[in-house]
Amino acid sequence: MIIVLKPGTTKEQADEILGKIADLGCKPLYMPGEERVVLGALGDERVLGSLHLENDPRVESITEILSPYKLVSREFHPHDTVVNIGKRSVGGETFAVMAGPCSVESHEQMSEAARVVKQGGGTVLRGGAFKPRTSPYAFQGLGVEGLEILQSVSAEYDIPTITEVVEVADIEAVQDRADALQVGTRNMQNYRLLAALGRCSKPVLLKRGMAAELKELLLAAEYIVSEGNPHVMLCERGIKTFGSEMRNTLDLAAVPYLKQRTHLPVIVDPSHGTGVRELVAPMAWAAAAAGADGIMVEVHPNPASALSDGKQSLFPEQFNELMVGLRRFAEAAGRRL
Amino acid sequence: MIIVLKPGTTKEQADEILGKIADLGCKPLYMPGEERVVLGALGDERVLGSLHLENDPRVESITEILSPYKLVSREFHPHDTVVNIGKRSVGGETFAVMAGPCSVESHEQMSEAARVVKQGGGTVLRGGAFKPRTSPYAFQGLGVEGLEILQSVSAEYDIPTITEVVEVADIEAVQDRADALQVGTRNMQNYRLLAALGRCSKPVLLKRGMAAELKELLLAAEYIVSEGNPHVMLCERGIKTFGSEMRNTLDLAAVPYLKQRTHLPVIVDPSHGTGVRELVAPMAWAAAAAGADGIMVEVHPNPASALSDGKQSLFPEQFNELMVGLRRFAEAAGRRL
Amino acid sequence: MIIVLKPGTTKEQADEILGKIADLGCKPLYMPGEERVVLGALGDERVLGSLHLENDPRVESITEILSPYKLVSREFHPHDTVVNIGKRSVGGETFAVMAGPCSVESHEQMSEAARVVKQGGGTVLRGGAFKPRTSPYAFQGLGVEGLEILQSVSAEYDIPTITEVVEVADIEAVQDRADALQVGTRNMQNYRLLAALGRCSKPVLLKRGMAAELKELLLAAEYIVSEGNPHVMLCERGIKTFGSEMRNTLDLAAVPYLKQRTHLPVIVDPSHGTGVRELVAPMAWAAAAAGADGIMVEVHPNPASALSDGKQSLFPEQFNELMVGLRRFAEAAGRRL
Amino acid sequence: MIIVLKPGTTKEQADEILGKIADLGCKPLYMPGEERVVLGALGDERVLGSLHLENDPRVESITEILSPYKLVSREFHPHDTVVNIGKRSVGGETFAVMAGPCSVESHEQMSEAARVVKQGGGTVLRGGAFKPRTSPYAFQGLGVEGLEILQSVSAEYDIPTITEVVEVADIEAVQDRADALQVGTRNMQNYRLLAALGRCSKPVLLKRGMAAELKELLLAAEYIVSEGNPHVMLCERGIKTFGSEMRNTLDLAAVPYLKQRTHLPVIVDPSHGTGVRELVAPMAWAAAAAGADGIMVEVHPNPASALSDGKQSLFPEQFNELMVGLRRFAEAAGRRL
Repeated sequence: MIIVLKPGTTKEQADEILGKIADLGCKPLYMPGEERVVLGALGDERVLGSLHLENDPRVESITEILSPYKLVSREFHPHDTVVNIGKRSVGGETFAVMAGPCSVESHEQMSEAARVVKQGGGTVLRGGAFKPRTSPYAFQGLGVEGLEILQSVSAEYDIPTITEVVEVADIEAVQDRADALQVGTRNMQNYRLLAALGRCSKPVLLKRGMAAELKELLLAAEYIVSEGNPHVMLCERGIKTFGSEMRNTLDLAAVPYLKQRTHLPVIVDPSHGTGVRELVAPMAWAAAAAGADGIMVEVHPNPASALSDGKQSLFPEQFNELMVGLRRFAEAAGRRL
Repeated sequence: MIIVLKPGTTKEQADEILGKIADLGCKPLYMPGEERVVLGALGDERVLGSLHLENDPRVESITEILSPYKLVSREFHPHDTVVNIGKRSVGGETFAVMAGPCSVESHEQMSEAARVVKQGGGTVLRGGAFKPRTSPYAFQGLGVEGLEILQSVSAEYDIPTITEVVEVADIEAVQDRADALQVGTRNMQNYRLLAALGRCSKPVLLKRGMAAELKELLLAAEYIVSEGNPHVMLCERGIKTFGSEMRNTLDLAAVPYLKQRTHLPVIVDPSHGTGVRELVAPMAWAAAAAGADGIMVEVHPNPASALSDGKQSLFPEQFNELMVGLRRFAEAAGRRL
Repeated sequence: MIIVLKPGTTKEQADEILGKIADLGCKPLYMPGEERVVLGALGDERVLGSLHLENDPRVESITEILSPYKLVSREFHPHDTVVNIGKRSVGGETFAVMAGPCSVESHEQMSEAARVVKQGGGTVLRGGAFKPRTSPYAFQGLGVEGLEILQSVSAEYDIPTITEVVEVADIEAVQDRADALQVGTRNMQNYRLLAALGRCSKPVLLKRGMAAELKELLLAAEYIVSEGNPHVMLCERGIKTFGSEMRNTLDLAAVPYLKQRTHLPVIVDPSHGTGVRELVAPMAWAAAAAGADGIMVEVHPNPASALSDGKQSLFPEQFNELMVGLRRFAEAAGRRL
Repeated sequence: MIIVLKPGTTKEQADEILGKIADLGCKPLYMPGEERVVLGALGDERVLGSLHLENDPRVESITEILSPYKLVSREFHPHDTVVNIGKRSVGGETFAVMAGPCSVESHEQMSEAARVVKQGGGTVLRGGAFKPRTSPYAFQGLGVEGLEILQSVSAEYDIPTITEVVEVADIEAVQDRADALQVGTRNMQNYRLLAALGRCSKPVLLKRGMAAELKELLLAAEYIVSEGNPHVMLCERGIKTFGSEMRNTLDLAAVPYLKQRTHLPVIVDPSHGTGVRELVAPMAWAAAAAGADGIMVEVHPNPASALSDGKQSLFPEQFNELMVGLRRFAEAAGRRL
């Protein structure tokens, strides 16, 4: 930690701060300059954080040297983590394709969706039973009934499932019926939910908050892992920017940035990332080229009748075209579907 | 709702969509142009939303005409709502000052904070017992013990209290011990929490999500009000922008924008809105001039030792200076403290 | 300057960098830690910048300690600068009101506008003759004819004028006919234009780029001042954010932030800052409360017929109401109109 | 154009607006609803824009139906435009690689850079002679001397060149010595410069402004094309977002979005788009997968000594690795290098 002091701070005041650093067992450094005095504190940033030097009125600015996350970092664990969803693996040499409708609407719809996803080469079936919606007047999902539809279709088509969980109270119902749990963008910083997921045994896909820095995403993952669940996948799904022409701005550079810093698999969601079905396939291909471990896309047997996110849902034939191209790009990236 | 069709859409296809609109009891309109066909649908946007026309592959774009929120809108309820926190009112002619430390740390700290706030002219004491923190390794709040400290200090100084609630399971404990409940920025779209707060009897201060449009804030408030709790206050607390020099960008124009559209009181939090204690007082004054119904600010007996947000916490004497200026600006705005 | 080295960097490599720092006459510091080696370099950041240490593949990150701007900084020049536009002053105890239409459209329109502005208490007349427009098919301004209208109306009503300049080639024509020159948001980083304005004798109002950090605004001002023209005013006019409900997000906290760091006057433009005429007056009042030295607002004799920016232009009676309120808030801020 | 009127607008007021629309030769439509009256105006948006209905105080909102750009749109010109830079073509089946250092620093540096670019398979040599820099104290480029170095190296290695132009006065000098002209992000809305480039004969690469909507980029291109120069390439180079971990956020979805709307070639600059050399190659590959017509990357013989942008400049061996991967991804995209 580097601490820049305000002009006019005395040597005695600096010594007092240096003393606090030494008392913690960290290494203090004193660097007087002509215009500013700079202090250094070498040691675990988590320990140094307990000093709250940023609060000190004599401190102008603080710069951390080391990353504040540990368990999810590649420095801590250099090898890629492979996460298993049912019998399918995410990470490593395979490129995962999680696909399905935004919401579970009926058994018929999910069954047809599962058929399309499986035939096209998808590896995991997605579908939401609990839907966080901007308006209280919008469709909120089928709840446990939706989970049961998902479970039954999963058995029918022998395809593992992933579905969103929005509240601690629902975790048990979800983990009993699905193969992986998903945390939505609005809940990335719902720390109670994260901690509870850290105590469950199923893998968790953690979506990036729509205004979250990548450091914040990694710290959110650290909440889950530090509670005991190492089976975490990160998901870039677009961020909020000034751009109003697409639903979100898909931050694809987050993929190599994260892969260099964490051992966890990184998934890309080009459906929410763009919000426009015509842009989903090219961005799925770009995700593979950028080094992602998989994609999550919305496919609906009949998008025009979808109860949520239909505008960004692929038609079955669009999903097939996406998969045809994806094979080429995944192969160019040294992966197989 | 205005529906622009893609080039090449036939009259028959347009008629099919117009038929769906009429079937809902809404008024369909057909407007053929040289380059595009445009359809209109006049009626309740919530009803029209159930058609999901945005999903239709023949539809190029949709524009809503009416706002999707109802109960919180000024069209629905033209007069200003006044919310009572204990014996103090928020909205109307008074200008509310909610102040106190970020976190409840000890009885001594809260007692001293309450003294400072009350002497300076503050009307409500704030202090967090449940703290959502970016890092799992940071101080997470004292929990129920913190609530009890808050309650005891409230009685001691005869000042009502407001504190954050982060999970449905905690609502009962919080509403039994505090006079108002606060929803933090990370939970603005935690719809389960909002709905549950809609079923409680204490007033709720709803902070704007750090990347939320104002329409989304109003819809979040609609979740609470539509469940039965009309005692809702909105709070502008800064948004995420490209700006890296302050913690957030305080969007003060949100104040008159909201006041023109909703009858709910609007509060401004310049502490989180800037993240820098030297900027808090001028932005509190600007909030009063912009027409806000009150402010929420962080004050700590000793910011240098604060366990969270110390950098943006005012020293007691800074709070007093803020209040001196605030009297002048609130008066110029036709309010009294 | 603080330099964090990548893991694995050797002592010899660090010494090589430290040698370069010493060779420049700056003070090098060596701080080895367990996980990272950190170097310090104390001295003028402009000199240190010439080492381009950020390029070095052994360097993980660089943090500057001192601000890169000098002449515009309050450390360099502690007292407030007062700028004169014709016979009116900007900065100090007065609160400046620059008002008028977006574009000069005709002598009749400008004459009527000048009457409204002067009667209402405005101090400087604005009006654009050269208009940068997003579409090549939109009205581009009257050019020199517009400047001449401005000049003639200025004489008629004895009110000084400010108008935009968009190209080096136009500076002479503009400075011969107007009392102050304005650099628009799209040209804040048109460095050739800034340098040329640094060589002219009239004062310059520099608008913040719509995606510019405040440090970048101060460096843009430094371009003008370092070429010899100290008569510079800064203008906050709203930034681009995810918010789509207003034209821009007015970053009012920029006012106290800038006032603490620079001696130059700071003006606020709530017309562009919000883009909605109903929001202009409250934000003008908030600007005064936040400590601004003045405002720039758009007023048009008949906004409904304006050739540009009519939606945000005040009607004459709205301008009068703004001024009535402004007197109260400017007084509360210790200023006079 | 769809015009929503404010509540309380009378039939007579609506008729007055409808009359104006009809007077322009456009088709007026009247759609009265229960809560709002909506008007339609069918015809050329450029013509309708001259009514400035957005200014009218009775108008609540305006929605355009048709795009405001024409000449650059795919509706106007369905086939892909191929632009020639010297003997190399951009667009169509080839994938263009424009590479070289940020700044021209010396003949030796450019000669070595040209060798690296040509050997690696690059098609166009880039290098800046006029550099827009945030600080007046930073290296501003070699000017005409730099252009002459570029010209001489171009002849030596038989590779065409592209270089930035920052002012109208420099266009002649640049177009006499380089094969293509580049407009930087800070000048995307320097309309005088764009119009002047519309009157020159060399191709122009137009970089997206760092806070520009894609519609604004297309309108900026329309400035050039409407003045007579159809040889325009668009370049996505990253936008400003809340993200502080990379220099910019590369908006790769802009590629398919633009390709669907315009016939002009679309280039991606992953060097500025990320600002970090380790992220350049994966994002270049992703650009190819997303459907781009080429990339522009910074390569320097010795990045550690670069006078600008060294941190994002590739080492020669990194450029070679980028090219090896790029061949695979371009082929998967149906292109050849």
